Amino acid sequence: MSPRPMARPGGRSARVQASVHAAVRELEAERGRAALTVPLVAARAGVTPSTVYRRWGDLQELLSDVAVERLRPEADPADHGGFRADLTAWTEHFLEEMSSAPGRAYLRDALLGDPGSGNASRCSDYSAEHIDLLLARAAERGERPLPEREAVMDHVVAPLLFRILFRPDGLSPQYARGLVEEALGASAR
Amino acid sequence: MSPRPMARPGGRSARVQASVHAAVRELEAERGRAALTVPLVAARAGVTPSTVYRRWGDLQELLSDVAVERLRPEADPADHGGFRADLTAWTEHFLEEMSSAPGRAYLRDALLGDPGSGNASRCSDYSAEHIDLLLARAAERGERPLPEREAVMDHVVAPLLFRILFRPDGLSPQYARGLVEEALGASAR
Repeated sequence: MSPRPMARPGGRSARVQASVHAAVRELEAERGRAALTVPLVAARAGVTPSTVYRRWGDLQELLSDVAVERLRPEADPADHGGFRADLTAWTEHFLEEMSSAPGRAYLRDALLGDPGSGNASRCSDYSAEHIDLLLARAAERGERPLPEREAVMDHVVAPLLFRILFRPDGLSPQYARGLVEEALGASAR
Repeated sequence: MSPRPMARPGGRSARVQASVHAAVRELEAERGRAALTVPLVAARAGVTPSTVYRRWGDLQELLSDVAVERLRPEADPADHGGFRADLTAWTEHFLEEMSSAPGRAYLRDALLGDPGSGNASRCSDYSAEHIDLLLARAAERGERPLPEREAVMDHVVAPLLFRILFRPDGLSPQYARGLVEEALGASAR
């Protein structure tokens, strides 16, 4: 398994990523997470193990990368006609997704990546982008006052992720709605 | 390497744990995290690999267990004479410890443990116990109003851990002090 020349950027690079990610998802579904190895993933993806090592470094970094892609939201948040309703619905959906067994596993995998890789930051960016979108809609409707995006991150997203990862007792849609009300109350003062 | 009979609870069990934890710490310092294997740790600790597998399951679970022990606070928080000063000092210290390179590595390792093992919960329990202690001191001094412990977890501990793990830009002692002021302001309303 001699090293191959560096993949060219662009088309081939994107194809390698897609096929390696797909191989991880398939093999995980078929054989479970513990059975995954770089040679197994590479064989399924039709690339050499050295291609995987060169691009991702090791299995942990690859799994982190796949997890972040799985945490990427599939659609913009729904429009419920007002910021309170929008943020409440978004928060309930976020809690449901992230506190599910797969959600928690992806969060842990994302955190496993090298801190310099920015994988964990990409997860919080997904939330920040959605909150920006809800705030932009609210501003267009002329709603005032509105919280700052980072205040919503601190008051809603942070407690949910903290409790999902470290302190799961008492997590509920009701608790999540309470966080939203507190965040809105703080911005109204 | 045939399996040995289950360790008796009590003395021997505690000694095995201490020697295996010490072996992990020593070998990590000497050779780095990536070089750790269960047979290597077992040899250094003077136990069989099967003892380690039987007790911890795998290397990941062992590293998670060691990380939680390292995150255990060494002393009670200092008494600064008032709740605001106590919580501010505790928060600055917590940020400094948890956002250091070793602190972040231990947090990630703690999260790697099996969710059923409760390792991550033990980390947040350490913070909860310290906050309880600060609140009890404040109550003895007759300070009013005081926040609820879980409100401090949501408003101070959660945003710090969220940003350390997922969103490190802008983390500073000033940001941490702002969280304390907000938590105290909320409890005063």
